[in-house]
Amino acid sequence: MAASLTNFERLSLNQITTDRWSLREAADGCARAGVPWIALWRHKIAEAGLSEAKRAVRDAGLRVSSVCRGGMFPAATAAERQARIDDNLRAVDEAAELGADTLVLVCGPAADRDIAAAREQVAEGIARVAPYAKERGVKLGIEPLHPMYAAERSVVNTLAQAIDLAERFDPAEVGVVVDVFHVWWDPELYAGIRRSSGRILGFHVSDWIVPTPDLLMGRGMMGDGVIELRRIREAVEAAGYDGPIEVEIFNRDIWDRPGDDVLALMKERYLEHV
Amino acid sequence: MAASLTNFERLSLNQITTDRWSLREAADGCARAGVPWIALWRHKIAEAGLSEAKRAVRDAGLRVSSVCRGGMFPAATAAERQARIDDNLRAVDEAAELGADTLVLVCGPAADRDIAAAREQVAEGIARVAPYAKERGVKLGIEPLHPMYAAERSVVNTLAQAIDLAERFDPAEVGVVVDVFHVWWDPELYAGIRRSSGRILGFHVSDWIVPTPDLLMGRGMMGDGVIELRRIREAVEAAGYDGPIEVEIFNRDIWDRPGDDVLALMKERYLEHV
Repeated sequence: MAASLTNFERLSLNQITTDRWSLREAADGCARAGVPWIALWRHKIAEAGLSEAKRAVRDAGLRVSSVCRGGMFPAATAAERQARIDDNLRAVDEAAELGADTLVLVCGPAADRDIAAAREQVAEGIARVAPYAKERGVKLGIEPLHPMYAAERSVVNTLAQAIDLAERFDPAEVGVVVDVFHVWWDPELYAGIRRSSGRILGFHVSDWIVPTPDLLMGRGMMGDGVIELRRIREAVEAAGYDGPIEVEIFNRDIWDRPGDDVLALMKERYLEHV
Repeated sequence: MAASLTNFERLSLNQITTDRWSLREAADGCARAGVPWIALWRHKIAEAGLSEAKRAVRDAGLRVSSVCRGGMFPAATAAERQARIDDNLRAVDEAAELGADTLVLVCGPAADRDIAAAREQVAEGIARVAPYAKERGVKLGIEPLHPMYAAERSVVNTLAQAIDLAERFDPAEVGVVVDVFHVWWDPELYAGIRRSSGRILGFHVSDWIVPTPDLLMGRGMMGDGVIELRRIREAVEAAGYDGPIEVEIFNRDIWDRPGDDVLALMKERYLEHV
C-alpha cells in the first residue's frame, strides 16, 4: 500500500466540482484553500472570456493542470467532422494560452449504430489535431470514459483502447488520462496502467457511490464509494506519473454546497483516501 | 450482414420483460403468442412454487431456455460465502427440475473495496458449484454484466473476463452468456465472441436507449436503441451458438403495457432487428 499524500502540491480542482462558481470564483477559492492547480472547462472559459480566464488564474497564482475538453470527433458528415476538428484547434489554442500542458479529449459518441466506424473517426480526428497541438506545446490526453457513456459521450471506453489509440502517435504528443471513475471496474486496469507508462498525462479522482444514484450525477467525493483510490494512485505513480491529481466530481449535492466547504472536504479526503 | 430471422423457433421470453405477469401468466402468454421458449427467474419460481412452475411451463408446451440466476458469490465471511454456495445448489436443482440446460450466473459484487479478491471468490464459488451442476445436467453460464453494475451486481464485467473464468472449467460444465446490453460497447466484443466459440450458453437481446434514462430500468425494446443487434447475432452464430435467443428487458414503460402487446411487439422487432 502506498503512503498517504502529505501535502497539496499535486492537488488540482477540476472546476466542474464547484460548478456553481464562475471561473474567477473557482480560481480565488483555490487560492484561499491553498490548492495550487486548477482544471478549466471550455464553457467556463467562454463564459469568462479567454483573457479574463488567464488573468483570474494568474491573479490567484495557480497553474492549469488541463483544459476540458477537446474531442467529440465522430459525426455523420465530412463537413460536421471538419467543424469538430476546427473546434479542437480552438481548444488547443485555449490550452496553450492558459499554459495547460494537456487538452483532455472526450472522444465523442457514434453518429449512428456503427461504433467501430466511430472509433476510426476518433483516430482520424486525433491525427488531424495532433500536429497543431504539438506546434502549440499542448499534449492531447485521451480519456477513456466509462462504458455507460459509450452511446452518448465517448466510444473510447477502456484504458487499453485509449493506449492502443495513443500508441499510433509520438508519446510527446498524445497520451492518456486516467480517471478512476471511468476505469476502476476494469479487470485489465493495472495491466493498462503499466502499459501506459510514459503516456499518462493526467490522473482524476472521485468515487463510485453505492447505490449509484444516476449515470451522470452519481460521482462521489473520495472515500464515499468503493474505488480503491490509493491502489490506483500507486499504480499510476509506478507508471511514472507524478503530475497534478484532479478532483472531478459531477454531483448535484456537492454542487449545492458552498464552494469553500467543498474544497475543505476535498483536501481532507485527498490526504485520507487518495 | 446476416439474414433476418424468419421464424420464432429460437425466440425466448425472459419473463422479467413482462414483470407484472405471474409465471403462469407469462407461460400462457408465450403459448398464445407462439413463443416456444421461456426463461424463468427464481423469485418468480419461488412465488409460484416449483411444481406449479413446472406444470405451468408444461401446460403451455414451452421449453425453459435458462433459469436466472445463480451467482452472487463474494461475501465478507466464509459462512456467508457458504450460504451463497448452498443457494446456488438449490438454483441448480430448480434448473434441473425445470429442464433448463443453463443456470445463468450473475456473479455478485464485492463485499468491500477489494474487487480483485471478489473476483477470486467468484472463481472459487463456481468451482464449488460446477461438479454438482454437472451431476444434475445443468450448465453454468457466466454472464458478464455491464461495468456500471460492477459495484452492485457483478464483478465480472467483460466477455473476455467471463471466458477467462469459464476456461478454468470443462466446456461441458461452464460457459458464458452473451447479453448485448452488457457487452455491446466493448472494443474487444467480437474478439471475445470468437474466443467464446463452443462456450456460448445463451444470447440475450434488448437495446441501449439514448439518452439512457436509468442504470437499471433503461433497457429498450430491440430497435429502440443503438446496439448493432444483427451484427452481434451473426458473430454469436459464427461462434457456433444456435440456441434460444432471450428477450430480457428491464423497463418500467414496457412493464406497464399489457403483456400480450409486449409479446406482439417483441416478435415484430425480433424479425426486424435481431
